[in-house]
Amino acid sequence: MDENKYTEELYRKGALAKIAARKLGNLSSQVKDSALLAMAEQLESQAEKIIAANQLDLASGQQKGLSKTLLDRLMLNENRIVEMVSGLRTLASLTDPVGEVISMWTRPNGLQVGKVRVPLGVVGMIYEARPNVTVDAAGLCLKTGNAIILRGGSEAINSNKIITDIISSAAVEAGAPENSIQLIETTDREAVNVMLKMNKYLDVLIPRGGAGLIQTVVENATVPVIETGVGNCHVYVDESANLEMAKKIVVNAKCQRPGVCNAAETLLVHRAIAEDFLPAVGELLVKEEVELRGCQETMALIPGIKSASVEDYATEFLDLIFAIKIVSDMEEAIDHIHYYGTGHSEAIVTENYTRAQEFLRLVDAAAVYVNASTRFTDGFQFGFGAEIGISTQKLHARGPMGLPELTSTKFIIFGNGQIRI
Amino acid sequence: MDENKYTEELYRKGALAKIAARKLGNLSSQVKDSALLAMAEQLESQAEKIIAANQLDLASGQQKGLSKTLLDRLMLNENRIVEMVSGLRTLASLTDPVGEVISMWTRPNGLQVGKVRVPLGVVGMIYEARPNVTVDAAGLCLKTGNAIILRGGSEAINSNKIITDIISSAAVEAGAPENSIQLIETTDREAVNVMLKMNKYLDVLIPRGGAGLIQTVVENATVPVIETGVGNCHVYVDESANLEMAKKIVVNAKCQRPGVCNAAETLLVHRAIAEDFLPAVGELLVKEEVELRGCQETMALIPGIKSASVEDYATEFLDLIFAIKIVSDMEEAIDHIHYYGTGHSEAIVTENYTRAQEFLRLVDAAAVYVNASTRFTDGFQFGFGAEIGISTQKLHARGPMGLPELTSTKFIIFGNGQIRI
Repeated sequence: MDENKYTEELYRKGALAKIAARKLGNLSSQVKDSALLAMAEQLESQAEKIIAANQLDLASGQQKGLSKTLLDRLMLNENRIVEMVSGLRTLASLTDPVGEVISMWTRPNGLQVGKVRVPLGVVGMIYEARPNVTVDAAGLCLKTGNAIILRGGSEAINSNKIITDIISSAAVEAGAPENSIQLIETTDREAVNVMLKMNKYLDVLIPRGGAGLIQTVVENATVPVIETGVGNCHVYVDESANLEMAKKIVVNAKCQRPGVCNAAETLLVHRAIAEDFLPAVGELLVKEEVELRGCQETMALIPGIKSASVEDYATEFLDLIFAIKIVSDMEEAIDHIHYYGTGHSEAIVTENYTRAQEFLRLVDAAAVYVNASTRFTDGFQFGFGAEIGISTQKLHARGPMGLPELTSTKFIIFGNGQIRI
Repeated sequence: MDENKYTEELYRKGALAKIAARKLGNLSSQVKDSALLAMAEQLESQAEKIIAANQLDLASGQQKGLSKTLLDRLMLNENRIVEMVSGLRTLASLTDPVGEVISMWTRPNGLQVGKVRVPLGVVGMIYEARPNVTVDAAGLCLKTGNAIILRGGSEAINSNKIITDIISSAAVEAGAPENSIQLIETTDREAVNVMLKMNKYLDVLIPRGGAGLIQTVVENATVPVIETGVGNCHVYVDESANLEMAKKIVVNAKCQRPGVCNAAETLLVHRAIAEDFLPAVGELLVKEEVELRGCQETMALIPGIKSASVEDYATEFLDLIFAIKIVSDMEEAIDHIHYYGTGHSEAIVTENYTRAQEFLRLVDAAAVYVNASTRFTDGFQFGFGAEIGISTQKLHARGPMGLPELTSTKFIIFGNGQIRI
């Protein structure tokens, strides 16, 4: 650790962030919202500069032979900048969770004990190619009074540098403390290793990106981590399902946006309705250009599809590929979900009251649905107005995280001379 | 890791705990409470056996030359068993947090989204010499539907083995799943290293004990940790304090039970009242056999006391030793608290409204007091009816943790065919 050449630079950034955090935690909502609006304005007026820097990243990405998908994630155009800007403006309009007294009660000895929301302190964000995460994460942290240290992917370094420059200056000019928003400018992976163990300076690490990145962070960090995102999600169509509804839900969960974590990856179908349901839904899915991979029984019902391997059931495809399995009952479906799933989003389609209730109770996941698409697991869809990610761990936050999930609490106690006897 | 000879044993325990956890999570409160009562009854009726096993631990502790304090922590007598038993009975009488729907709302598209409390899953507990932690932790986890893997100190191994045998059998007989409560029977430290990285099986690790243990766990664990306990707590006596009240609070915070984390370790006094206050409170403290260590100015006001070093200000004495410092104003006091404190419990004594409010707002700690002793930072004193520890971190829980802090949440979503557009 001590031999890592980035230790000094990162510790310095950490110490500066700590100082900023103490000031940020006591900034009024008014100043924070002005800062967010100033950030939005500056991003808007300097859009051309950002796009130019992004062109450099895209060019070197093409040279390195990045995939089309990656290049698309990396790409910023006017539309995407407009989205980032409007995200910041929405944030400014939301209620500040900091300072909320969640509850307060009086003890028999007269002590008044209250629990109040406070910022977490310093948030470390480790992410990949999407430069919009830079703006989103910085905005969310500023709104909640947290300092942030950003570590984006090397592919986006030019975009991230210019974006951080712009929003950081705008925030400071509007009254936010210096160093509230900092970017780690080296793209060497060694720097991440320092960050993972900066317990002295970081209150939490949030990794956003693919399974590999998240795994690395979870396995190596000693700073508390909020694990986000990996979703091997299932839709189980029960024997009592309304099959018309089931078709719509299955097609939506798989196809509406296949590259995201709340899209379905495996379809589980009760044997009693498989013959009625599978050929019909198969046709719809094939029309949507979905590649189907089924168990033996499924293959008999939908001719011409591939066979699903154990690995397929364990894979988050993030693509137009769908594994299918026929099950004997809900219990088998739930066992399959717990064995292969990642605890993200799981849905049952059923008209049976008892099974609906059981599924909600028995399935251990961040979001469990009856008769709706898994695609709704999302801070905006749930009505939070903002989202920092979707937690798949159980500590601190689970499921879509909005502004309150970026806060901690402290107890405040009003006494009049109480001592303990 | 893979070469650790305890990997196999611990992974097996982990896998068994996971299975138990799934069942425990769906056990009714009724069955869980019967199990708690059965555990209490069996501990009571087998008290003699426990005391006999404890004698073995005490004898080998004496042979190893353990300190008096450690031997006292290790010791079980009838009274202490009665306390453990009554703790379990209290737990049985408390409301089960599992299944509580914290909130539920309807989205514009008709989706009903609810947030419900669920168990964390499998809790790993790493602690030191106190065998009563075995019972407390097992009881708290059973009540909240969590499986537990216990790892107590080697000094208490005989006590822990018999206690775990008794409570585990009692719980199973009363309907709890097998392996809900497991003890790691080896006392080799190598086993802890496996436990710290059992992310596959453990949802959280809770270390309880001295600063060294907690540090080791925090620095080496990849499993999410709830950091507990270390308290370098301060009382700041402001210039406007009611000095009679201040004396009582200071003496109570230091002396009522000096060996615990919420006892005060440093007294900060505003210069304007130091001459009036320090000699008087010094006399009271000396009468209580407190060793005082002061700054230069303090030494002039209380003749004969030792000089306080920087290290003294940074130390959690857990003993009748008290560091004292005179400060120019509240700002200096708060800076001192943030520089040396551990974010546990901090108190101001003041009659000044503005400074009281500022202290509550500006001090970054789990519990911040106005005009009361720091000794109240405790789950029972706060009215939770139970306590698993006092968190000094910001993620998940901060301050005294009761039953809800041993739970997570999941979203349950009731739809009627909604798909995302």
